[in-house]
Amino acid sequence: MSASVLQDTTLLARDLPAPAPRFSGLPRYNFIGGHNDPTQIPIEGLVAAAASVLRREGSSLAMYNLAQGPQGYPGLRAVVADKLGRHRGVKTTADDVLIVTGSGQAINMITRLLVDPGDTVLLEEFCYAGSITRFRAAGAKIVSMPVDDDGIRMDALEKILADLKAKGVRPKFIYTIPTIQNPSGSILPLARRHQLLALAKKYGVPIFEDECYADLVWAGGAPPALYALDPSQVIHIGSFSKTLAPALRLGYVVSGWDVLSRLIPLKNDSGTGALDQMIVGEFLSNHFDQHVSGLTAVLHGKLATMIEAVEREFGTHVEMFKPQGGIFLWLKLPDAVDVTKLVKPAAAVGVAFNPGPEWAIDAATTKSYMRLCFGSATKQDINDGVKLLARVCYEHTGIPPRSDNVINR
Amino acid sequence: MSASVLQDTTLLARDLPAPAPRFSGLPRYNFIGGHNDPTQIPIEGLVAAAASVLRREGSSLAMYNLAQGPQGYPGLRAVVADKLGRHRGVKTTADDVLIVTGSGQAINMITRLLVDPGDTVLLEEFCYAGSITRFRAAGAKIVSMPVDDDGIRMDALEKILADLKAKGVRPKFIYTIPTIQNPSGSILPLARRHQLLALAKKYGVPIFEDECYADLVWAGGAPPALYALDPSQVIHIGSFSKTLAPALRLGYVVSGWDVLSRLIPLKNDSGTGALDQMIVGEFLSNHFDQHVSGLTAVLHGKLATMIEAVEREFGTHVEMFKPQGGIFLWLKLPDAVDVTKLVKPAAAVGVAFNPGPEWAIDAATTKSYMRLCFGSATKQDINDGVKLLARVCYEHTGIPPRSDNVINR
Repeated sequence: MSASVLQDTTLLARDLPAPAPRFSGLPRYNFIGGHNDPTQIPIEGLVAAAASVLRREGSSLAMYNLAQGPQGYPGLRAVVADKLGRHRGVKTTADDVLIVTGSGQAINMITRLLVDPGDTVLLEEFCYAGSITRFRAAGAKIVSMPVDDDGIRMDALEKILADLKAKGVRPKFIYTIPTIQNPSGSILPLARRHQLLALAKKYGVPIFEDECYADLVWAGGAPPALYALDPSQVIHIGSFSKTLAPALRLGYVVSGWDVLSRLIPLKNDSGTGALDQMIVGEFLSNHFDQHVSGLTAVLHGKLATMIEAVEREFGTHVEMFKPQGGIFLWLKLPDAVDVTKLVKPAAAVGVAFNPGPEWAIDAATTKSYMRLCFGSATKQDINDGVKLLARVCYEHTGIPPRSDNVINR
Repeated sequence: MSASVLQDTTLLARDLPAPAPRFSGLPRYNFIGGHNDPTQIPIEGLVAAAASVLRREGSSLAMYNLAQGPQGYPGLRAVVADKLGRHRGVKTTADDVLIVTGSGQAINMITRLLVDPGDTVLLEEFCYAGSITRFRAAGAKIVSMPVDDDGIRMDALEKILADLKAKGVRPKFIYTIPTIQNPSGSILPLARRHQLLALAKKYGVPIFEDECYADLVWAGGAPPALYALDPSQVIHIGSFSKTLAPALRLGYVVSGWDVLSRLIPLKNDSGTGALDQMIVGEFLSNHFDQHVSGLTAVLHGKLATMIEAVEREFGTHVEMFKPQGGIFLWLKLPDAVDVTKLVKPAAAVGVAFNPGPEWAIDAATTKSYMRLCFGSATKQDINDGVKLLARVCYEHTGIPPRSDNVINR
């Protein structure tokens, strides 16, 4: 290929992203991304589901969308409606569910539906990097909503909305992850949910609710979804990546037909992969609660391991935002630590973490924060990886300061 | 939802497509789209493949991209490399294969890679509607390449390229479906393939080769893929929609790393659905030739039924372009027939077909053409549906003229 006409870069379109490197394997101590626990994949359950659903409906694979239209496999839509009804307080049916190829596709589609360049959208000050990136790519102006340990501060939000209104700006939506926020793991209390809906109504701003982690709540549960409290104000999305497995590309949008009918033409992929949909729909129609409770217990145990490891290695030099569910631990090191400078040396010893600035509207506010995923690593690797991470941090910043016994441990 | 804030259309972005209607089922006599034969879905083979691959590798579902990077499941990439080597003359390996979520995604990505608004691209005068639509959406100027029964006319292409060069225009690519062209079903002969590559090299224009139907060639086979003849000039794509099942969303790009490395960042979907990839990879790694030869024989038989039905019902008032493989029959009625006016009355009696103008660069040239898919209907439905179609055509145009015995049949 050395003389390829395609190496002539004058043929390329403008504004392309940088080329990808060859994939060289995942890091040994992998605390990045939204990976899940490999021991919790219900292999025999999926095998049985595949046999059952293929023998019952496999011939419909010959037709685009299984001959059942662009909203997705009805069995999986029914699973979504059922679990939202039983666990999230949402009264809905499969008619209001659109299956998408991962919730990232839902974010792309909803952005396309509502955002023109220059439009304003509101996001939690610390927020999912994939959403920040997508909204910016669409040319949105992002306004940051301050949060505390319970999520969005309603006093601050009211002031923001009033200030924007005074300038003649009506935001296109309030994007929020109210239930197991990413990265903080917080749950917005019920009273704030009602306040949020009231503010959104007062200012005529739709709410874009992302519940990708809401199935994985520790004991105690969470208040109903915002969509449950007022479906007329909310577009609700979710995913099976965290609930089951991220290599699946299965997410969903729940909304009324006025929204779904406008989203479907933006899907542009001739449907979502049928075997993913059929097998997951079949498996979860029988095993949702059992699977989720088992997975959640395992994740909660791994969080405990990670918290212990971080306390042991960083001592008082770390502030942890203990999550109420999910797969992430968000933490803050002393202001003197710039985590972005630790990425390379940590990688050199096999440790990967997500630096805080990627998960913030204003990167400068989070240079001492990091997000650690405890979903995929074993407990042993969590212990060993956090120890290595602390050593790298010490070697580059002097933090956490080490006594002899710590260094030799 | 009657008072939904989302019904406020001032919130919507500009230039949205029309909302979708509720899905109301497929037509009784379904000759549209790229559907396949439901009896040819290898259900037990897929069940066995699912059990085998899930038990061997299922735990990797817990990681994005099965922990194996963004090019896709290695087992499926190996299937692509193997079958292209044995059947299409392509010397390649899994390293040069990128799995995509249906070949439509590949078309989107390659368009994004090469086309800025105002750029010129070359297409066969009759061509896949999905490609025409995507290139137009990217702002491309489409120049039509005249075809005859064997595909692109090289004399015409040379003149087009020379004329464009004289105007200072270097096209971004020549898009072609050389092997079982859509809609015509033609196969570009080997000599023309060499001529095409020579012209493309002379004018410095990459070739974008789409081989979605190339596995389904009637006895006799086809010349090697353009990519086989000169990989340095060609980006090659294909699909499993026609080879196996369209409800799967599995396609591929084959090219050198200079191209793949630039396409991967444009994929933007966190990977292609894993169960689709794993199960299809596992099944086809053992059963590709057996499955394809069985499917092709069935399709060839259904084509014979459709040709007989069209001859019986339309007699001398139709010109058929008998395909050398695939699932489509492209045909021409007398100039007096405007097929676009038959769409509604045909639908009213349960018959759906693709009107020619959607499959042409210049819609006006094909108003008497239609494309009929013979992949999914039974032989009985092919006979009954074509009979109904002829009756509708007669009732609206007087063509084909009917003797008493025909009308009463």
